Amino acid sequence: MIRTSLVDGATGAAKRAQFPAGFQQLFTSSSDMAKEGTEIAEETDQMMDLKEPENPVSPVIDPKEMRAVVLTGFGGLNKLKVTKKPMPEPQEGEVKIRVKACGLNFLDLMVRQGNIDNAPKTPLVPGFECSGIVENMGEKTQGFEIGDRVMAFVNYNAWAEVVCTPFDLVYKIPDDMTFPEAAAFSMNFVAAYMMLFEVANLQEGMSVLVHSAGGGVGQAVAQLCSTVPNVTVFGTASPFKHEAIKHSVTHLFDRNLDYVPEVKKISPEGVDIVLDCLCGENTGKGLTLLKPMGTYILYGSSNMVTGETKSFFSFAKSWWQVEKVNPIKLYEENKVIAGFSLLNLLFKQGGCSRVKTAVQKLLSLYDQKKIKPLVDSLWALEEVKEAMQRIHDRGNIGKLILDVEKSPTPLMANDSTETSEAGEEEEEQEGDIDNKERMPFIQ
Amino acid sequence: MIRTSLVDGATGAAKRAQFPAGFQQLFTSSSDMAKEGTEIAEETDQMMDLKEPENPVSPVIDPKEMRAVVLTGFGGLNKLKVTKKPMPEPQEGEVKIRVKACGLNFLDLMVRQGNIDNAPKTPLVPGFECSGIVENMGEKTQGFEIGDRVMAFVNYNAWAEVVCTPFDLVYKIPDDMTFPEAAAFSMNFVAAYMMLFEVANLQEGMSVLVHSAGGGVGQAVAQLCSTVPNVTVFGTASPFKHEAIKHSVTHLFDRNLDYVPEVKKISPEGVDIVLDCLCGENTGKGLTLLKPMGTYILYGSSNMVTGETKSFFSFAKSWWQVEKVNPIKLYEENKVIAGFSLLNLLFKQGGCSRVKTAVQKLLSLYDQKKIKPLVDSLWALEEVKEAMQRIHDRGNIGKLILDVEKSPTPLMANDSTETSEAGEEEEEQEGDIDNKERMPFIQ
Repeated sequence: MIRTSLVDGATGAAKRAQFPAGFQQLFTSSSDMAKEGTEIAEETDQMMDLKEPENPVSPVIDPKEMRAVVLTGFGGLNKLKVTKKPMPEPQEGEVKIRVKACGLNFLDLMVRQGNIDNAPKTPLVPGFECSGIVENMGEKTQGFEIGDRVMAFVNYNAWAEVVCTPFDLVYKIPDDMTFPEAAAFSMNFVAAYMMLFEVANLQEGMSVLVHSAGGGVGQAVAQLCSTVPNVTVFGTASPFKHEAIKHSVTHLFDRNLDYVPEVKKISPEGVDIVLDCLCGENTGKGLTLLKPMGTYILYGSSNMVTGETKSFFSFAKSWWQVEKVNPIKLYEENKVIAGFSLLNLLFKQGGCSRVKTAVQKLLSLYDQKKIKPLVDSLWALEEVKEAMQRIHDRGNIGKLILDVEKSPTPLMANDSTETSEAGEEEEEQEGDIDNKERMPFIQ
Repeated sequence: MIRTSLVDGATGAAKRAQFPAGFQQLFTSSSDMAKEGTEIAEETDQMMDLKEPENPVSPVIDPKEMRAVVLTGFGGLNKLKVTKKPMPEPQEGEVKIRVKACGLNFLDLMVRQGNIDNAPKTPLVPGFECSGIVENMGEKTQGFEIGDRVMAFVNYNAWAEVVCTPFDLVYKIPDDMTFPEAAAFSMNFVAAYMMLFEVANLQEGMSVLVHSAGGGVGQAVAQLCSTVPNVTVFGTASPFKHEAIKHSVTHLFDRNLDYVPEVKKISPEGVDIVLDCLCGENTGKGLTLLKPMGTYILYGSSNMVTGETKSFFSFAKSWWQVEKVNPIKLYEENKVIAGFSLLNLLFKQGGCSRVKTAVQKLLSLYDQKKIKPLVDSLWALEEVKEAMQRIHDRGNIGKLILDVEKSPTPLMANDSTETSEAGEEEEEQEGDIDNKERMPFIQ
């Protein structure tokens, strides 16, 4: 059911950053992408005829409407539709963006399931980050002009042709940063940066353990660690990803094995920083692995598919089963435990200016060619289900991107199911990469 | 029972750092100290005749013996004696130091009570830090010569005329740093520095809450915060200290009041860093007061007399009653909780090189006249009981120092008890500053 995925078309840019051979294989030329883009398919009754827009800023489609991915209710993939929605207009302090690319994060799967605190009501348009071109500004915005190439955080609604979001969540991007790169950049790199350099205090010679080393955050962490001399990165990932990412981390472990003894074999005293996703037993393991003065960070704002979590059900369960920590133990052991949620920081806790500072530092590193977002694959809005399946199955290496202008790839000849039927049937098909377990949807 | 305390004699040095008027009052001239030093008293049968040493490196007293404070068993002040002990000689990797001054920390009171994990057996010589002159070196030491002026960490045994300690716990001190300053420097400033800059990540414009702002750590924290632009320091202290320390912190609160609403009145969004001692209810309060991305640090390596703790008994009780913390809550709120124990880092966790780096940075700040240890008072070894009473009563502003060459101050005319009787009777006299509560000794 997983189709051949496209990869970031920014071939030239791929060579800029000095990545090892493993990375280069992940990029193909942009012409491949263009070829795919010429084909248009009608797949479901919710999907519309697509015309190649003549001008990205002024689409020929009805200016009062736009396409968007809509989650009609919490549950399985069948709750996702692409529909027309009224064109949003910027309110005071907002920037209107013609979206080119959107980031897909693990969190979006949790949203789909309703597995988040204070879930908004459905129907809703998912998505927390995008890149595109400024099309208009509301009153009392500053720093932007029509036509600016930008990336932005959005509190939902990113997966659409047009979004409006507060101007202090919008950042201009460098000329040589592609839109898919920009959409892959914001959430993953900001989260990785703030965890490594603000929550923890990454210094020369330290060691970092990161799960899902092949995912968007994992790769951002690996790249940011490489900007500090002599940092050792321990990573866990599915074995099939090891070849592709082995050059980005110092030591790679099979995510299906217990990493604690493996790490201790190499570094008996443990590691300085553990970046952990939201899974119960990993908290204890992570704390065990910490050196004195080490920092354990539980994070969840990014695309991560972690540890023992083989289904959403067990994921949600493990979330709440995290053991509580005795501060006295932290005192005795000189340890630090932290939580990091970029979305809460941005949308609930007024952290915009702090995030902006991090974005500026990251863009400077990008300009210095020290970091470069790794895009796994590009998907049309209509392919959001397949994209979600891919991230669920931990098939991705780097970031999954919804390319708003991309047309859906036609079904492959050997596909036995029509996408139009997938809405109801996918629940049976969505499962772990090895098909050992199906995802128990919450309907 | 509390005698007039002496204060740091380093008048010239006191003016070097640009402290406000409140601080200057705390210093008197070194001639005052000298006057006191000429008087010799025989107070207890454990105390010996003292002769003014002709040469600090080569005392005239029997070279095979030395004076030391000995804790004969866990319990009250009566367990402390000054006795002669065999002269220690440096083992491989050790430096032998002729001690000039020792730091007295709140932790020493806990040791006396046996209120620490893995307490060593008595009799023991207490004390974890001292300053003095290198008298000899064992094999395989490097970096020191006889006659070097140094400060050092010691794993017990600091309160003596001579100590031997591993060379990587010994640091040369600047020529213009007095021995009392050096003994006041090591533990408090290293703890404050590592908490502010390594565990937390103090940056321009941040805010810090510190308890016992008048104590050794509190004053070190205040000074280190002043090295970063635009840092707001909230401090709690007994009202009688406010006049003396008001210029060192931005906002001072009465330690007997609830500081949470007071802080929130001034800074509704909370503070970036909370430095807390080891008391139960303050953990919850501290976490409540944290801004998103803020860091709460539970620390206990230094002289702190905190919060609601009015007796050792309630202190020990509150230590264990600290609420456990749910990491998920940290995730949702973007908060960091940490523990810091300098002694564990040094003596159990191999943190010597890390501490050395911190000491070097601190000495550089000292050389730049940006920080200066604040000495509350100097006490003879024989006065250790009164010194302990003073720190217990929260009478100190800055650090209490045992001055090894100082002779005990004679009892004051209106003292109704002989010090020689204090051994048994002090338990009744040792209590809170306001005498509302006596210290319930564990015998």
